[in-house]
Order: sequence, then structure tokens, then C-alpha cells
Amino acid sequence: MASTQAPTGASPQIAVPRGLKGVIVTDTEVGDVRGTEGFYHYRQYSAVDLAQSRSFEDVWQLFLYGELPAAQASADFAAKVGRLRRLPDVVREALPSIARASAVSGPLAGLRTALSLAGAAAGFQPVYDLDPAQRLYDALACCAMSPTILAALYRLGSGKEPVEPDERLGHVADYLRMFTGSTPDPAYAAAVEKYMICAIDHGFNASTFTARVIASTGADVAASLVGAVGALSGPLHGGAPSRALDTLDEIGTPDRIEPWIRERVLAGDRIMGFGHPVYRTQDPRSKMLREIAQEFGGPLVDFAVEVERQVERLLAELKPGRELHTNVEFFAGVVMELCGVPREMFTPTFAAARVLGWSANILEQATDSKIIRPIARYVGPPPPQPVPSAA
Amino acid sequence: MASTQAPTGASPQIAVPRGLKGVIVTDTEVGDVRGTEGFYHYRQYSAVDLAQSRSFEDVWQLFLYGELPAAQASADFAAKVGRLRRLPDVVREALPSIARASAVSGPLAGLRTALSLAGAAAGFQPVYDLDPAQRLYDALACCAMSPTILAALYRLGSGKEPVEPDERLGHVADYLRMFTGSTPDPAYAAAVEKYMICAIDHGFNASTFTARVIASTGADVAASLVGAVGALSGPLHGGAPSRALDTLDEIGTPDRIEPWIRERVLAGDRIMGFGHPVYRTQDPRSKMLREIAQEFGGPLVDFAVEVERQVERLLAELKPGRELHTNVEFFAGVVMELCGVPREMFTPTFAAARVLGWSANILEQATDSKIIRPIARYVGPPPPQPVPSAA
Repeated sequence: MASTQAPTGASPQIAVPRGLKGVIVTDTEVGDVRGTEGFYHYRQYSAVDLAQSRSFEDVWQLFLYGELPAAQASADFAAKVGRLRRLPDVVREALPSIARASAVSGPLAGLRTALSLAGAAAGFQPVYDLDPAQRLYDALACCAMSPTILAALYRLGSGKEPVEPDERLGHVADYLRMFTGSTPDPAYAAAVEKYMICAIDHGFNASTFTARVIASTGADVAASLVGAVGALSGPLHGGAPSRALDTLDEIGTPDRIEPWIRERVLAGDRIMGFGHPVYRTQDPRSKMLREIAQEFGGPLVDFAVEVERQVERLLAELKPGRELHTNVEFFAGVVMELCGVPREMFTPTFAAARVLGWSANILEQATDSKIIRPIARYVGPPPPQPVPSAA
Repeated sequence: MASTQAPTGASPQIAVPRGLKGVIVTDTEVGDVRGTEGFYHYRQYSAVDLAQSRSFEDVWQLFLYGELPAAQASADFAAKVGRLRRLPDVVREALPSIARASAVSGPLAGLRTALSLAGAAAGFQPVYDLDPAQRLYDALACCAMSPTILAALYRLGSGKEPVEPDERLGHVADYLRMFTGSTPDPAYAAAVEKYMICAIDHGFNASTFTARVIASTGADVAASLVGAVGALSGPLHGGAPSRALDTLDEIGTPDRIEPWIRERVLAGDRIMGFGHPVYRTQDPRSKMLREIAQEFGGPLVDFAVEVERQVERLLAELKPGRELHTNVEFFAGVVMELCGVPREMFTPTFAAARVLGWSANILEQATDSKIIRPIARYVGPPPPQPVPSAA
């Protein structure tokens, strides 16, 4: 943390931990995570309390407008975003090409391209030049379109025709309908809705930070969201619930839990679905999702609970003091499997929720006129060296 | 710079200046700017020396491979990137839709979408999972395709058919040919090539930082570049040479320089084309571009030089001690106007060069496994408040 004078005699240079770890880049009213308490919140409310008592659309309003709606406002908003789920023609027409192009790079690459196109098609202008109502509308539109895009890309990738949105349905139920092709069982829609609410935001993470860096230049809402989608696609970002299910598949049966885990831990492998960089106690999302899974019940749930019990005991023995518990991936995967969400839609489902968190952060950043621009320290050979001639 | 304990008792929180100003986020060997010396460099060489003595392709190799090529390597590389300028079919087919969609949001929104699509179409994988040769190839391909994309979007936007790349031409000459439709005068190509070399990089700026943040998650090269393009499109990023030409147009004649400038400064307006956040002396790019302009000569150049002379005198009088000189925008605009580059292609031309700087930074970041993830400080109402019922 030493503040030293730059070698050029210019501005002071401030040394901080690698990766800006612990560096406060901004104030926020969007929310926070209290890792040692196993608690996180959206504005002044517990995220888990919100998931258990309000609709996705209500929490969406909390993020973008700053408060939960009264009953009539809730219905008006649901109708409004229902209409906004419909894609502009140019995006709908381009989706088959985007789906074909993203077959290898994956659905987040498709969302990245389609949101970029959608923002341009809507004529988005830099947030720096817009009044707050217009940038709020742009963010709303991107949030509303994201599930439609992801569902259509999934269907096109499976050789099926996209399903148009139905504005009379709730946002999460319609999302499930758009990629499965049929109206979901209300119990499944409710469970996925709870999961998606608890995935909207989670303190300050790399994709949220990316969105704010781009927004700090005054760029349009789509530019910021597209950058955030890109960051989310990075393997170090985390948040891939399908990997935890893969772990369950690989273990296979209860008698194999202990030898499988011992082997992996001795080999130095991470156990997917366990451990979190922030939580030093039970992940509150994991707790809620386990309860949802247990309400459904069945052999997968029993097995998952048994894996959790044995793995936590083994990790406490093999890695004492590390406090490794199930993270959000573990029971999120189980819940989505129970609700008929295919594994390749786990990450898209997460993205369809997280786009709200990014948007709230973009709108908050847009009220700050200071660009986020740190510096780098040049450590290469000293210049100027004479340029060798071109041959 | 106080290091305080987080209220939750978790990791230490580090307060730094707003916008991370002066905070060292990384070490780099790509280059640096020495504002008080009026000097900037690419690796160990003066950027201006490189612009005056080497080809765009040679400097490209300096950025991506870390060194200038010998003669044969230079020819091989030029042939290779010549071939890479050709777009994948799916991108070429989607360009008319992308051009139509970006008519309002502009060419950077088009580049953002097309690069995103191109990266997916090429099946880009996260840099975190790739060997260095593959991620280098991905970066090369994106750099090579960017001028082709920008030229095609320009022509489509003007109702013309795109022009296919010609791999026998130099990269900058072919870029000019692809958007004008005819092989450029060698003197014009050489002048734009010098400008584009000096625009490849300029220390650590907001778009470069964005590219590194995304790359730090391990995401694919296109994800990082698309985020950088988004940041470049922000009004606070700077770098819009067309605005300085607009200033020249508005002043109109030499006798109007003094009253126009006095009026603007008294009104508190910034004078576009003058002043830079880093340089406290003449911008070395401005000096080189003025010399190039003066070699062409003519009434526009004489007028621009006279405006520079009078405005610097007036700003020294009206804003003493501020050291306001012409920045890169001022003579870049003049040079591009002389070379027949339309104003709407000024920013795209900058982007077609800067994509190399971003790429070098992405490749450097990919060698560092530490994610860039600062924190935010929650300043909203204290949670948890009871969640009001949904009515």
C-alpha cells in the first residue's frame, strides 16, 4: 500500500494487492455479501427472504427502481416486461446464424453477440448522454430479452424452432416454456424462480466489475452487459452448476463417496460444488436450494444430501480449518435437474438472472462521472532503444 | 490509502482514490507513456520512431510476438495476416443485418457484434484452457478481421457492396481499399499507416483495462476484445479525431480564431483537439502528425497550423499553467481528411489499430492466473429489513 512517486515525476502510483484484492473501487447501494455470517442481501433485504416471498419481477424492480412494488405496480411491471421479452425482428432473423456460429463456443458467446446486436438494433446511445429514464428503459429491455435469446439459441441449437414469448406468463415460467416448448409445472416454475432470484446478484464479482468499468466510460447499456457476459464466460469467474451434477454422476452410488473423494483430494483436485471464496460458513443459497430439493424428494435428492454429509465430514478431516461446505452450484444443479432444465441451460439460466444484477450496477455507475482507469507499471527493457532498420 | 478491517471481520478493505486513479493494477511489458517527457513507447522502442521507420505489420509483430521481425519473417507475417483478413462465411452473411442494426448506435456497436460473432464462429475457447500458440492465433485473427469488418459495415451503411480483402496488399493499404473501393495513393496509405501505428497503444487506458479484466477471468479472446470495443465507445474514453475537425470547420477562417476561442473558453467549453490528461508537454503523436500534414501542405494544413499557433497562445493566456497543446485528435483529423478518409471512419480507423494493443494486453494477462476482482463498499440502508408481503 506504499504511495510512491512515479519514476517520471508524474502522478503518485499506489501499490495494492494482486488482482485488486480488497481494493474498494466504488460505493454501492445494490447489495453485499457477508461471508463470515453466511448472509447476502439485495439493497436492505435478505436475498433468500426475497426469493422465498416475492416474484422474480418484484425483485427485478427492487434492483432497477430501488424498491419493491405495491400490488398494482407489480402487475403493470409484469405486463411491461412481458411485452419487452419479444425480440426485435433483426435479432430474431439473425439468431439462426448466431446459434450456428456459437455451437462450439457456447451459449454465452451467443448471448454476447445477440445482446450486442439487440442494443444496436434498439439504437442504444451512450448512458453518459441519456436521461435516467432512457437508460433504465434500455436496461429493462436487455434484461427482458435475455431469456428469450437464450431459449431461442438453445432450441435452434437442438434443431427446433424458437418459441415466441407469451406476455401473460410470469418471466421465469415463460423462460422455461420458451426453451422446453411447453408450459411448465407450477411447482417447477416456482423452484426455478427461487433459484433465479438468488442468482441475480452476489456482491461484487468479476462480471459485475466489468460491467461497471465499461459503464464508467459512459458507453451504452448493451456495451456494458456484453462485456459482463464475456467475463462470466471465463473459467475463473465460477458459477457453473452443471459441474457439481457431474460430480454426483461420477460418484454414482453412496458406497463410492468416500473412496472417490479421498482419491480426488489426495490428487490435489478441487471438489466441484464445495467451497466458496467468500463464505466461511454455509452458503445461504445452498441452504435454501437444499430445502427446495428436499420438498421434491426422490433418489437424486437423497443421494445429494448423503454426498454433502459425507464430503463435508471428509473435507473437515482432510483439509481441517478450511470450512468447505456445499456452494450454490451443488443444490442448484440438483434443483434444476429435478425441474427438467437440461444441463447446458444451467449457465444460461444463471445469466438470465444475473443480467439484472449487472444492470443495477450499470445504472448506479452511470450516476458517477468518474471513469475507472487504474495504471500499469512498465517492467520491460528500458526505452528508447534504437529501432533496427527494416532489413 | 488506509487499510481498515471490513465491518464483517472478513478480508481487509483498502481505500484508494476514486476511479482507481494511480492504482497499479498490473505489471506490463507492452509499453508506457511518460507524460511529462512527451514520450510514449511500445516495448523498448519509441512509438513515433516505429511509426516513422517500420510497417504496421512489423509493429503488429512487436506487439504480439514481443519483437520486431527480420526481413523474411516480415514477409511471411504479412502474407499470413493478409489471408486472415478474409471473414468467415457466417460473419460475412450476417454483416448486412449487423450494418442495418448499427445504423444509429454506430460502427463500434457493429464491430462489437461482428467480432463477437467471428470469435464464436471460429470456435474460440477460454484462454485459460488454451496453449499460448492458440490464443496468439485467435488474437491475430481478430486483429486481421477488424479492418475488414469495419470497411464492410461502412460500405453496407452507404448502400454499397463490401469489397473483399486482397492479401497481396499491406494491411493499411488494403483497409483503405476495402472501404473506399479503390487502391489508395501510396502517399496516403503511408500517412494513414503512420497514424495507425501511433494509435495501436497508449499506456493503460479504460478499454485496455477492460480487456485485461475480462481476460483475467480466462474468457476467450473475442470476449475480451468485445468488452474493450464497448469501453472505447464511451464518451469519457476519448479519442474522437472527427471532433477536432469539426472545431476547424466551425472556426472557418483565420480572422475568426481569436473571438471564437475566447467565447468558448469564457463559456467554460472544452476546445476539442487541445489538452490531454497525461501529457504536460507537446503530444508526440501530434508533432509527428503535424509534420506529415505539412509534407502534404495546402490550405487546410495552413489553417490548422495557424489555429494551433493562436489557440495555444490564447489558452496560455486564458488558462495559465495548464499546458494545453494540440492532442492526437487535432492533426490526426487533418491527416485523415487529406488522405480521403471520411469522418465517420476516423473512430473505426483508430479501433482497427487499437485492437492490436488490446490483444497484446490480453495475451500478457493470460499468463497471469489471478483474477482482477476488487470490492465495493455497501453504503445503503442496513439489512436485513423485513420483506414486505406481496399484497
